[in-house]
Amino acid sequence: MDNNQEEKVMNSLKEIEIESSTDNKNNNKAKKEKKKPSSSSSDKKTGGGGSKKKEVKKETGLGLTNKKDDNFGEWYSEVVVASEMIEYYDISGCYILRPWTMSIWEIMQTFFDAEIKKMKVKNCYFPVFVSGSALRREEDHIEGFAPEVAWVTKSGDTELDLPIAIRPTSETVMYPYYSKWIRGHRDLPLKLNQWCNVVRWEFSHPTPFIRSREFLWQEGHTAFATKEEADEEVLDILELYRRVYEEFLAIPVVKGKKSELEKFAGGLYTTSVEAFIPNTGRGIQGATSHCLGQNFAKMFDINFENEKGERGMVWQNSWAYSTRTIGVMVMVHSDDKGLVLPPKVASVQVVVVPVPYKDADMQGIFDACTNTVKTLNEAGFRAEEDLRENYSPGWKYSHWEMKGVPVRIEIGPKDMANKQVRVVRRDNSSKMDIPTSNLVEKIKDVLDDIQQSLFDSAKQKRDACIKVAKTWEEFTTALNEKKLILAPWCDEEEVEKDVKARTKGEMGACKTLCTPFDQPELPEGTLCFASGKLAKKWTYWGRSY
Amino acid sequence: MDNNQEEKVMNSLKEIEIESSTDNKNNNKAKKEKKKPSSSSSDKKTGGGGSKKKEVKKETGLGLTNKKDDNFGEWYSEVVVASEMIEYYDISGCYILRPWTMSIWEIMQTFFDAEIKKMKVKNCYFPVFVSGSALRREEDHIEGFAPEVAWVTKSGDTELDLPIAIRPTSETVMYPYYSKWIRGHRDLPLKLNQWCNVVRWEFSHPTPFIRSREFLWQEGHTAFATKEEADEEVLDILELYRRVYEEFLAIPVVKGKKSELEKFAGGLYTTSVEAFIPNTGRGIQGATSHCLGQNFAKMFDINFENEKGERGMVWQNSWAYSTRTIGVMVMVHSDDKGLVLPPKVASVQVVVVPVPYKDADMQGIFDACTNTVKTLNEAGFRAEEDLRENYSPGWKYSHWEMKGVPVRIEIGPKDMANKQVRVVRRDNSSKMDIPTSNLVEKIKDVLDDIQQSLFDSAKQKRDACIKVAKTWEEFTTALNEKKLILAPWCDEEEVEKDVKARTKGEMGACKTLCTPFDQPELPEGTLCFASGKLAKKWTYWGRSY
Repeated sequence: MDNNQEEKVMNSLKEIEIESSTDNKNNNKAKKEKKKPSSSSSDKKTGGGGSKKKEVKKETGLGLTNKKDDNFGEWYSEVVVASEMIEYYDISGCYILRPWTMSIWEIMQTFFDAEIKKMKVKNCYFPVFVSGSALRREEDHIEGFAPEVAWVTKSGDTELDLPIAIRPTSETVMYPYYSKWIRGHRDLPLKLNQWCNVVRWEFSHPTPFIRSREFLWQEGHTAFATKEEADEEVLDILELYRRVYEEFLAIPVVKGKKSELEKFAGGLYTTSVEAFIPNTGRGIQGATSHCLGQNFAKMFDINFENEKGERGMVWQNSWAYSTRTIGVMVMVHSDDKGLVLPPKVASVQVVVVPVPYKDADMQGIFDACTNTVKTLNEAGFRAEEDLRENYSPGWKYSHWEMKGVPVRIEIGPKDMANKQVRVVRRDNSSKMDIPTSNLVEKIKDVLDDIQQSLFDSAKQKRDACIKVAKTWEEFTTALNEKKLILAPWCDEEEVEKDVKARTKGEMGACKTLCTPFDQPELPEGTLCFASGKLAKKWTYWGRSY
Repeated sequence: MDNNQEEKVMNSLKEIEIESSTDNKNNNKAKKEKKKPSSSSSDKKTGGGGSKKKEVKKETGLGLTNKKDDNFGEWYSEVVVASEMIEYYDISGCYILRPWTMSIWEIMQTFFDAEIKKMKVKNCYFPVFVSGSALRREEDHIEGFAPEVAWVTKSGDTELDLPIAIRPTSETVMYPYYSKWIRGHRDLPLKLNQWCNVVRWEFSHPTPFIRSREFLWQEGHTAFATKEEADEEVLDILELYRRVYEEFLAIPVVKGKKSELEKFAGGLYTTSVEAFIPNTGRGIQGATSHCLGQNFAKMFDINFENEKGERGMVWQNSWAYSTRTIGVMVMVHSDDKGLVLPPKVASVQVVVVPVPYKDADMQGIFDACTNTVKTLNEAGFRAEEDLRENYSPGWKYSHWEMKGVPVRIEIGPKDMANKQVRVVRRDNSSKMDIPTSNLVEKIKDVLDDIQQSLFDSAKQKRDACIKVAKTWEEFTTALNEKKLILAPWCDEEEVEKDVKARTKGEMGACKTLCTPFDQPELPEGTLCFASGKLAKKWTYWGRSY
């Protein structure tokens, strides 16, 4: 999505006035609905069922105007706003992360922060500002970032003597001090991490979460006496990134190594977890764990004395994941009804909605809702009731579906009579009645199953997109079909450049995504799909975000 | 401390080369010491005792060159660097927060974040950038912040169409969206908070933690239907700030209201917790909880429809505490041996040091150290052992004293034989032997007692500085004696301006710190110390940070 498109979406969002839960304009509609007998799938007397429910939804005016399969870009922009994750901001490429987003970020942060602390990584905070001279110390590095660097030149009405850059990443911010702190082998390893904001003033294709001018991330920066230790940590961290994606966000990723062309500017080699968006046929770099080798150590003079009294350069890594993770989650799981949240990262895992009915014991139903929430919260789930009297159950169903809450519990008179609750899954709309006596155990099973199903389903869809291409013709056919292409490659930089040049078009060029660590067998004599030379490895290719 | 002074300190720090634990240059010295029988206060045979220990310390070259009572500014700068809390950065007024600092920040954050979540405040994240037009919407507000605002004018080599400001605080960043999100009474209260960095490009007196161009903080921004709710929250938050200072940092604070001259730019009234630094005789604003009234609501058009269908303006609050808290902690508790950490915020509460002795069962001693740490950690304490063989016990004692660890445990052969450990308190250097069997219980008591003692001692010193001044003469005398002055005041803005003008000098002008909520009796007819008019209240006055 380019700037024009972004503006268009912002305007269209204003026009359609996404009706949020907090929008007073809904009150009249909602009140009107309240007078009618409410639909309840767990109360047959009202005639509640599939058809009736659809009517209610229609009435409420909730729902997305774009379809995921028809118009992915607009659908995405609409989902992130309508689910109250994102608000567009008056500076292009900057977005407001609303509480519904931040709670997901905090859950991942709690996990990752605890894991790196086990690895003896310590948190710190370096300034957001970096002097031009420090920023320019590593040539390849600055070449990679320079066009995107935002510069502060004034404070109040005063021109600064020298412009000061805002960190696009903190290698050049931190490493002058690594040079100071590291003297001997006993100072190693040095393992620091910070949770912070960074700024990359990109002008093309701003997209919430995926490509924004400011984003939140963690950046780890470590230094070791030996390459072996650095190599090992690169993979340990990559495994944590895999777990963030697969265990928390329920998104399958491929672990692998980036090509020379795609590696981190100034580093030795880059590993990544790569996700794939079937709808657009684009790969997306999920998180990166770089071995910087000794390149920055040379530029920043980070050396140490070893046990034998000899001086050596340190081996360094840096690694990061960002709020982009959340965008990938939205793209992979969400649907035409809105967001779909994996239970492990949902700030509300279960929402409990009372289903009123004429002459029903409403206080009893409300109490049952409150007690259900209490029981679930005490059992360690994140549950909330929605007892608002100015919205119909149907409106609430749509609202919480839009926000992606994994499980809805409905409680009506019949449920009360039968000592049960009606459970509805967000991921597949399936319904079941579960006895109140068995609530905690069953809800645990349902949430576990949703988490697993989301992953399985995403993996199935991703896998269905993988296409092996052994020739240029197979390659271009697969590319046109928006496939994730696995091809035998000679691993030559010039060949990758050539492929990029030959596939350049409206959709953007095709490039390597990664060379997967998990390599299929490469029969001797297999040729590179692009150069016809002997292939050295299987590599994933595709267009990407 | 002005820029010149800051530079001087930085240079002097470089010259004296603070010997950190990670400084390889110590190795030779340390090795030399190892050959000698090590001193141990718990092993009389070595002749270890006061005099011997002092020698070891001297040899190691650890320790501060400045004294808290002689040269407070330089002492402070030296403590924060030598304890490895702060590293000076190559951009003046910016500082690196090292892990020893961040762990304190995180402990406070965990407490405060949980408390505000109980109050239904939700975390969010707004952009670091604010457009000039939004920033200028509230006149008084921008007048207060304009001179300190940093402006981004370039990205890469491209001039931006319009300069973009970096948030000095986020009222003007957030409130345009509050206007959008708040429509009806059901959208209220809206309670958001963010943990972030802010930038205030001040040119005078940069001081680590206390006055820096970038700092970390939380900023809460809430909106209510009624003034009563807003008023109540202002005080609820202020109470949390009091707890941060008194319960965590062991620093007594005064809760009160700021004068009209000192309140938040654009707000209705400001409450604060005020601390005091006896050494400099300066008050320091610890944290602020503002009621913004309806002023921003008017400027940003934040209105809502109430139950009766009438439109009204919201009542707003904003409240913040920052990494300044940590600077106050250093100033109040630390001493000529270095940092003193209250146990509740210490990332290491107990350090366990083995005391080697010729022919001793070193493996047994090391195991005892490890087991002690294990026992304490399992009991929920934060304990670490220091088993490094290249440093003497004396060096380690000094090192951990410099870093402010509340309790040191020494384990030597005699301790092993007696099934005890030697416990040394950082705050008062007192020593005691405690039986291993009773370790957890006793350490808990000791840590609790240190926490309380630090608070009591700080309160005693602070209280000793409070001076009641009823006349101008008493007032100026007290001011010259660096007192915290409590004076009857007529509460007129012109009078405060006049006092500021009359006390202006090298040390900076004296101003109101706060009008304490806890008011002593004001006998009828009491006159203002400055204007001679009828006094309306008791107010604290002093020079401040």
